[in-house]
Amino acid sequence: MSLKNILDIEELNKTHVLKIIESTGYFKEVLGRDLKKVPALRGKTIINIFYEPSTRTRTSFELAAKRLSADVINFSPSSSSMKKGETELDTIKTILEMKADLAVVRHKDSGFVKYISEHITIPVINAGDGRHAHPTQALLDLFTIYCHFKRMEKIKIAIVGDILNSRVARSDISLFKKMDLEVFTVSPSMLLPEDMSYFDTKNFECIDEIIGQCDVIYMLRMQFERQNKKFYPSVREYNRFFTLDFKRFNNMKEGAILMHPGPVNRGIEIDGRVLDMEDRNLAKIKIGEQVGNGVAVRMALLHYLLSQK
Amino acid sequence: MSLKNILDIEELNKTHVLKIIESTGYFKEVLGRDLKKVPALRGKTIINIFYEPSTRTRTSFELAAKRLSADVINFSPSSSSMKKGETELDTIKTILEMKADLAVVRHKDSGFVKYISEHITIPVINAGDGRHAHPTQALLDLFTIYCHFKRMEKIKIAIVGDILNSRVARSDISLFKKMDLEVFTVSPSMLLPEDMSYFDTKNFECIDEIIGQCDVIYMLRMQFERQNKKFYPSVREYNRFFTLDFKRFNNMKEGAILMHPGPVNRGIEIDGRVLDMEDRNLAKIKIGEQVGNGVAVRMALLHYLLSQK
Amino acid sequence: MSLKNILDIEELNKTHVLKIIESTGYFKEVLGRDLKKVPALRGKTIINIFYEPSTRTRTSFELAAKRLSADVINFSPSSSSMKKGETELDTIKTILEMKADLAVVRHKDSGFVKYISEHITIPVINAGDGRHAHPTQALLDLFTIYCHFKRMEKIKIAIVGDILNSRVARSDISLFKKMDLEVFTVSPSMLLPEDMSYFDTKNFECIDEIIGQCDVIYMLRMQFERQNKKFYPSVREYNRFFTLDFKRFNNMKEGAILMHPGPVNRGIEIDGRVLDMEDRNLAKIKIGEQVGNGVAVRMALLHYLLSQK
Repeated sequence: MSLKNILDIEELNKTHVLKIIESTGYFKEVLGRDLKKVPALRGKTIINIFYEPSTRTRTSFELAAKRLSADVINFSPSSSSMKKGETELDTIKTILEMKADLAVVRHKDSGFVKYISEHITIPVINAGDGRHAHPTQALLDLFTIYCHFKRMEKIKIAIVGDILNSRVARSDISLFKKMDLEVFTVSPSMLLPEDMSYFDTKNFECIDEIIGQCDVIYMLRMQFERQNKKFYPSVREYNRFFTLDFKRFNNMKEGAILMHPGPVNRGIEIDGRVLDMEDRNLAKIKIGEQVGNGVAVRMALLHYLLSQK
Repeated sequence: MSLKNILDIEELNKTHVLKIIESTGYFKEVLGRDLKKVPALRGKTIINIFYEPSTRTRTSFELAAKRLSADVINFSPSSSSMKKGETELDTIKTILEMKADLAVVRHKDSGFVKYISEHITIPVINAGDGRHAHPTQALLDLFTIYCHFKRMEKIKIAIVGDILNSRVARSDISLFKKMDLEVFTVSPSMLLPEDMSYFDTKNFECIDEIIGQCDVIYMLRMQFERQNKKFYPSVREYNRFFTLDFKRFNNMKEGAILMHPGPVNRGIEIDGRVLDMEDRNLAKIKIGEQVGNGVAVRMALLHYLLSQK
Repeated sequence: MSLKNILDIEELNKTHVLKIIESTGYFKEVLGRDLKKVPALRGKTIINIFYEPSTRTRTSFELAAKRLSADVINFSPSSSSMKKGETELDTIKTILEMKADLAVVRHKDSGFVKYISEHITIPVINAGDGRHAHPTQALLDLFTIYCHFKRMEKIKIAIVGDILNSRVARSDISLFKKMDLEVFTVSPSMLLPEDMSYFDTKNFECIDEIIGQCDVIYMLRMQFERQNKKFYPSVREYNRFFTLDFKRFNNMKEGAILMHPGPVNRGIEIDGRVLDMEDRNLAKIKIGEQVGNGVAVRMALLHYLLSQK
């Protein structure tokens, strides 16, 4: 069954995921060429509608679209002449009357992207909505893991940090479990959702309990901007139990990899000295490769949604 | 006689208008295709110079240019390094030394766009200057009316609301009278220009006096940002005489259409409940169609100005 | 020897410069055509990373890239979601993982652009770093002089004003001396660097001492934003000794030209009345032509760096 939109992981089945991963591999190969552009979407126009500022994700989608020869319009309502008295749906509908071919939407409210997808006719990709979902991030994370290990089944992955406020965590856990990875979380109880049964994963309260057994250590970005209360007793306390420092980096299982959706809060999720050795540890630290894979997976998704008939 | 610029309605004659309307029809057909892009302006560069923020109009011009395969540069002096000591004409001249092929200019001062057109050599399109003119809006409005009724002559149109502060009103009235529509205004005296004889139209002080007789009800956007004094005794008073509510919507003449240049101030010009039935009343509410037609008319104008020799 | 980056004038030898000037001449001819676009960089993506706002220089690079058929991504970290805890190098590395083909970088700190060029693999062009260098401005200035005089050797040039805070002055002096122009400075001691021996040029404390002997009068922009203290006893005092007013304009040597990197602070560097006669003195006032040549020189540099193999 073909998809109209990419809104969250739940609506994807295994066949969809495998097809996207395969297609991402092809576009990654294109990005390795001297000439990185293909004519696949010539004549199509993608509109990026970002209610939350996000240079990385927007730039990644913009590059993906241009590498496919599509035109791109960037629309950021915050810098626009949006006035009181017009609803956000009014704005979106207006923009879409201009007949773009696909909309990429980010918004601070969970569910907003799905809501607008129900009111417009062109395909919509969710580029992050509140704490709810960030499906393109999850797909690029899965692709990065698959590239390294050449398989998905039985990969042990620890997802560490601010689960509560992270849409990346929600989409990653959902996708990884769907594809039969073994998922654990590592987080203090105050940074976990109240009902963890939803995830059905085992949680650890210190990274040291599990660091030696995992194939992938996935550090989440601390979402200070979405936290209502002080995030933890202190940075020092957080460092004691969760921060990936030099010692823990060396305690990782042989062949294991370190991931992060970026940008890293140095000294919170990962010690800056670990990041600064990146060049000598490319095989182990995948943070840069994740970014590159992000363009490839977005090319795959844009192509998938726009080349169906 | 061919035009170098599109600055206001006064410089267009009937032949120009009919030619633009015909060409807009062609480009509207292009926008209905699966592949909406034509190579007409390949190699040309359009520069959008917007001194007033305007996401809609700028995006509409940007899309129009890209659909014609032109390149687009967005230049917004407010976000730039413009410094005291440089005049606006210095800035414009500098930008134009870079050899763009056509400039689209919006400015808060009436007459500014005409002024700069006199000092530069490339074609200029006025995307709105102060309270003076917004010719591309008027042309898309006329096109929308023509598409619906298949004629222009003797169409009765009521232009309702803030005539005083509206450049759309000035350009619409001027164009509609030129093309032999029958134009009425509906506005409280405090929102009318002092010398209404310029327009030579009959004014009504309540929409109910005329709503049943008009083929087109055109609600103007309330230009709060250009109003120096409190806009009216109260919103409630305004609602009593001018707002298009559900009852008035049903009192419209059979076959009549409702227009608005957008974005609508819900509850001021039009009741939100009327807007929210849009899907079921596409044939009657033309606000979305106006936006789509805006891209087509701008394609027609860019093509007209740049394909002359 | 081929260049990987364009970071400052020092790394260019005479052969490089002559090759760039020759290539700029070719691209200037392209910009004079009706169709100003060539397919030279089709499929390449240029990323503009501007930490300091600069509409002119960014727009010039954007136009240059588009005229060469490259794609352009504009990335301005100030308007982005950059957060504390991520270093600027982290940001740059992330952006570059997305596999752009060349980066154009501006930053307020001297040496920053060189620093990042040492940490990334793609070519980098310095679009201005602090008070250090602005090599593309110097190259377009040299090209403008060469176009007018058809030679470089023995051209006498006075560089007037805020030498201390000007990266343009540094790059211009360095390039002009390399190419055997005769360079003088005209500046009050408080707007000179402490160690002027670095430049090895003769300085004058009043423009009248030298204005009749120079082929080129180059007025620097007063860099108020980089000045820590009050810039001079008073504007009136500055006008007395340095401002190019109408009388001085007429005292210029026959055949001499007036240049400025723009934007001019009217009444500080140049009297507004001199600027406003520009149309009648195109042969003498080169400020507009410099801007146009800027696009051509940037096309030459982008083409040079990206067409080597």
